[in-house]
Amino acid sequence: MTSIREFQNLMRRLYRVRDSKRGAKATHDWLKEEVDELYEAIEAINKEGIAEELADVLAWLASLANVLGVDLEEAALSKYAGSCPKCDSSPCICTSERKEP
Amino acid sequence: MTSIREFQNLMRRLYRVRDSKRGAKATHDWLKEEVDELYEAIEAINKEGIAEELADVLAWLASLANVLGVDLEEAALSKYAGSCPKCDSSPCICTSERKEP
Repeated sequence: MTSIREFQNLMRRLYRVRDSKRGAKATHDWLKEEVDELYEAIEAINKEGIAEELADVLAWLASLANVLGVDLEEAALSKYAGSCPKCDSSPCICTSERKEP
Repeated sequence: MTSIREFQNLMRRLYRVRDSKRGAKATHDWLKEEVDELYEAIEAINKEGIAEELADVLAWLASLANVLGVDLEEAALSKYAGSCPKCDSSPCICTSERKEP
């Protein structure tokens, strides 16, 4: 079992230097690129590719959190603490989407 | 400490029904939307907003993994098992970016 924090720390060990040099905006570009590749894998119904791209999105998200100095686990649990942050229920009983686009 | 799997399970408990109804592509649209909002928060140097948007991106990524039937933790650790998947070193010693865009 690997915590969100442990995975973020792994990304820090592997990529700290190059992530810092690249900076937040360029790291965000890479996150976006991986999100697009994930869509392509979904469209292609490529099961192995889907798993790999989901992993890449998480990896770049953790790298970006490192560059931004945010603990991803703390941020996630602070917003999603066991119930929907909008309707405060579990499961969510919101009548609209989590929020309007 | 919360594992990646526990967080994905939390998203399943909260949003399983609406995520399944929405489907993979529409859920991916929401993931993308959150990634864009994260960029806006970075540009605005909005520290609280950045943490919240990072949380939202992780939440939608976990929802999408649920819709796609993929264990995000397993996918992440299968690709990032302690070293860079490209150069197999820790820290990464790749001479180029993780991969070409």
